[in-house]
Amino acid sequence: ARPRVGYYYAGKTRDQLFAQRIRQMKVKDYKAVPVVMTEEASVYEAICNMFLEDVGTLYIVREGAILSGVCSRKDLLKSSMGKQDLNAVPVSVVMTRMPNIVTCFPEESLFDAASKIIQYQVDSLPVVKPAEKDSDQLEVVGRITKTTITKAFVELGEGRETV
Amino acid sequence: ARPRVGYYYAGKTRDQLFAQRIRQMKVKDYKAVPVVMTEEASVYEAICNMFLEDVGTLYIVREGAILSGVCSRKDLLKSSMGKQDLNAVPVSVVMTRMPNIVTCFPEESLFDAASKIIQYQVDSLPVVKPAEKDSDQLEVVGRITKTTITKAFVELGEGRETV
Repeated sequence: ARPRVGYYYAGKTRDQLFAQRIRQMKVKDYKAVPVVMTEEASVYEAICNMFLEDVGTLYIVREGAILSGVCSRKDLLKSSMGKQDLNAVPVSVVMTRMPNIVTCFPEESLFDAASKIIQYQVDSLPVVKPAEKDSDQLEVVGRITKTTITKAFVELGEGRETV
Repeated sequence: ARPRVGYYYAGKTRDQLFAQRIRQMKVKDYKAVPVVMTEEASVYEAICNMFLEDVGTLYIVREGAILSGVCSRKDLLKSSMGKQDLNAVPVSVVMTRMPNIVTCFPEESLFDAASKIIQYQVDSLPVVKPAEKDSDQLEVVGRITKTTITKAFVELGEGRETV
């Protein structure tokens, strides 16, 4: 008799295998280049930079690429609604400040990063590592956004051997 | 001898099976509720509505939920940078107008929708169907965003049996 062959292997369902496969994808292999500004930049400069670089989130850093804040399109939109002079307001006033920033590490799985994006309702996560000079500080080395995850989803749907 | 059992089935690699699985996911099973406004609304009202509903894109409609435009955070941010009175500018001036809008249908795969989001560099796709009164017009019935795709990615990584 012909053996019964199905989608199952080693007692796992097809979807458990998918899950395992997805969890092998690492942040370091998918992260995009971070777009950064300093705390002294104005809200106006931040908006211009967001359009120039075509990103949804800017990371605000101190010397040595140390993460000090995150500034989203929403933060900028809120501050541009008022009557204030956008050149006079520093971006550090409207940004979300450390330690209230959700981050991820290069060795983390893309699945963990995506889960944090959904759980904390943010558009992007800075990819960070402990700074060389002071390991209490975080150095920005990349970004993971909903675009990153959407691209990874498309790659999976194309059947590209990504890992 | 023990048979060689691996990740392969019917001549397909593991990743081709994943691809097949992902392409079974349909837009209609994942779409979110669309947030709509009329063409007469002002840019100021659009910004407020975007914050109230916490979305990144508004769909601009005519009577019968007929799609006439799409307004993104980027469109609003651009118009709020100038010195103009946001209450005096109608949203129809800053929106992207039909037929320059990328859409998707309920029966399409989520993979096709995600591919369009990446290819056309948009944040969201209105889910549409031909209008009952005039099939040349499109009625808005939902939205697919990068958040939708990120949630689907997380579900796959959790091994939830979604189909």
